[in-house]
Amino acid sequence: MARIVMKFGGTSVVNIERIEAVADKVKGEVDAGNQVGVVVSAMAGVTNQLVAYVDEISTLYDAREYDVVVSTGEQVTSGLLALALQKRGLDARSCLGWQIPVETDDAHGKARITAIRADRVVEWMEKGKVVVVPGFQGVAPDGRVTTLGRGGSDTSAVALAAAVEADLCDIYTDVSGVYTSDPRIVAKARKLDKITYEEMLEMASVGAKVLQTRSVEMAMKHEVRLQVRSSYSDEPGTLVVGEDEIVEQELVSGITCSRDEAKITLTCVADRPGVAATIFGPLADAAINVDMIVQNVSADGKSTDLTFTVAEADREKAVQTLKAEKSELGFLEILSDSDVVKVSVIGMGMRSHVGVAQKMFSALADKGINIQVISTSEIKVSVLIEEEYTELALRALHHAYGLDAK
Amino acid sequence: MARIVMKFGGTSVVNIERIEAVADKVKGEVDAGNQVGVVVSAMAGVTNQLVAYVDEISTLYDAREYDVVVSTGEQVTSGLLALALQKRGLDARSCLGWQIPVETDDAHGKARITAIRADRVVEWMEKGKVVVVPGFQGVAPDGRVTTLGRGGSDTSAVALAAAVEADLCDIYTDVSGVYTSDPRIVAKARKLDKITYEEMLEMASVGAKVLQTRSVEMAMKHEVRLQVRSSYSDEPGTLVVGEDEIVEQELVSGITCSRDEAKITLTCVADRPGVAATIFGPLADAAINVDMIVQNVSADGKSTDLTFTVAEADREKAVQTLKAEKSELGFLEILSDSDVVKVSVIGMGMRSHVGVAQKMFSALADKGINIQVISTSEIKVSVLIEEEYTELALRALHHAYGLDAK
Repeated sequence: MARIVMKFGGTSVVNIERIEAVADKVKGEVDAGNQVGVVVSAMAGVTNQLVAYVDEISTLYDAREYDVVVSTGEQVTSGLLALALQKRGLDARSCLGWQIPVETDDAHGKARITAIRADRVVEWMEKGKVVVVPGFQGVAPDGRVTTLGRGGSDTSAVALAAAVEADLCDIYTDVSGVYTSDPRIVAKARKLDKITYEEMLEMASVGAKVLQTRSVEMAMKHEVRLQVRSSYSDEPGTLVVGEDEIVEQELVSGITCSRDEAKITLTCVADRPGVAATIFGPLADAAINVDMIVQNVSADGKSTDLTFTVAEADREKAVQTLKAEKSELGFLEILSDSDVVKVSVIGMGMRSHVGVAQKMFSALADKGINIQVISTSEIKVSVLIEEEYTELALRALHHAYGLDAK
Repeated sequence: MARIVMKFGGTSVVNIERIEAVADKVKGEVDAGNQVGVVVSAMAGVTNQLVAYVDEISTLYDAREYDVVVSTGEQVTSGLLALALQKRGLDARSCLGWQIPVETDDAHGKARITAIRADRVVEWMEKGKVVVVPGFQGVAPDGRVTTLGRGGSDTSAVALAAAVEADLCDIYTDVSGVYTSDPRIVAKARKLDKITYEEMLEMASVGAKVLQTRSVEMAMKHEVRLQVRSSYSDEPGTLVVGEDEIVEQELVSGITCSRDEAKITLTCVADRPGVAATIFGPLADAAINVDMIVQNVSADGKSTDLTFTVAEADREKAVQTLKAEKSELGFLEILSDSDVVKVSVIGMGMRSHVGVAQKMFSALADKGINIQVISTSEIKVSVLIEEEYTELALRALHHAYGLDAK
């Protein structure tokens, strides 16, 4: 017997037929003797419709009212699933964000959960009641409805799992787990049995859209064991767990790519202390997130070129922001390029093994792929390359690190 | 300066364009110096969709979960209207049923409002804030969401108006007021400037679907002045008020018809004390509402015929219920007929004037219309006639009582 939180995303509850299928899955866990809590998203498409209504009225909306509108989708699903569970003879009830309560800060539209008062939920679960909680929603200190930002239902599920001290948090989705690479590009990609929180975080932040980043951070912090699995089958998925649970650590766990990148270069920037701060200050003020940064060694000791990447959506804004400060910043030219992709190699193993980055560089060189920018973290090496080489690079790296399925 | 509650139904908020138009109307009242509270229905069609989802899962649903699902439509509209009002520079916010709170009993799906704690709302209104309240919803003593039954937003509006001691509760709808008769049938029907609560109640209960019956009862109890008016124009509508506000009382205010009637006759029923109770007991047990009842004088002192009406939807059930008890009840035959219509003449004036009923009977006789059953109340005379005479009867009565527009 275990205590489980099951989370179902929008495609898993897209219509009544799928909600009935979800109810069957939940009943399966209850029949197996488990205590079950469920977190649900809105039926796929519903939240988009609600957001479109808000945008039609005003793009400069009051986020408190936005939350009142968009939080309803999950509420509908929670009631419907509770009904479908009752039809199967289960003792089930919905419990809304403000009813539990799921307490958040007051950052409407992207609120953070501060506490879940789960005593009552635990009591119900111990009595065999299935509690269905709408994801994505909470309540601010002043009693108004909040939402956690898109994809926030993952975070709701992990937070609930932490609050009820669940043995496992199953994230049901439309993929069967976490893969070594995108199977649509790399045919030989394999589903991973296990992956560490740290690796999953790097995967999530570089474009493997399986789990919301914040949900993984929260799982890591509270040591919630996560499982990413398919709502269309009963196969086990991928466990996201602490390092200690993984006996044989692979050198590299995944190869990912992110196309949502733009490269910006400032030429002939003065090579003196403080210049980077001068440049990145205005970007930070404009809420533009800068990712990779490279500053060339100065050839003449006076000026240098500075290259960095931003999200493609921020490219134009970044260029305009810097142009407006040109006299202040003192650069010659500003160049930008969207035909780039960030390819990353991720693995806990690289902390203890040398040569992981070198293997990446030579595998790409063998295919004649030019590396424009490099950045590294403890468990990740990322390179920026020309976008048309994306597929070639992913397959070459997948093979080079021995990840190909047999 | 006045304190006003404005209520907008589903067709008035069917899309963003109409919500913007509603916002303009609200702004008009604020600009005129009034304190305004607003109650909104779900966008037309939304509640039906939500009910259909519930029915698709189970027709024997848990009304508590039904309420969680169907209450969301109004919540969406309240947030959207608050945003549209803010766009117009107004200080506006939504306030959900559980936030105010609108306290109800726990009769989920058809809950009754027990109290509205409106101190905070009054404070906001006095500061010029427009509070937008989703109609139809409340919160039960145990903190779960309740709904008031279909059309319940009228009741929400009246209850809010009573709680904030509003000077007027404007019910905006797709008709421009209360008419002396159905204008689709009686071309010369006139919009009434004023009507009493009592008359409106009789109108509502016999098929003039302008206001939910319960909302009128509540308005009468709390002396809330109601106005039924069009959301498509700025013309004044019909005031529903206490008798003392109406200086010159018309003899008859309206002629209505209800087609949703079925007539049932039991022949040769024993003419002895208690027989009526014996017959209507089983119907009451089966939750069948009996309306008009006529028992003929017995010709032989031993048996008589008994005729009554029920809602058409209950006809078959009523017949089956009585047939099952035939040996117990002791009647000869059971006859039923759906080709009947109930036509009613309604007016406060008939309390102090004789001959109102007589005028009805002779007007119908003049047109050769046979009266099958008659029932009367203090301010209403109703007759059951053959359905094909409906239009003829309405026009004849409208003319006979001098209601025709000039």
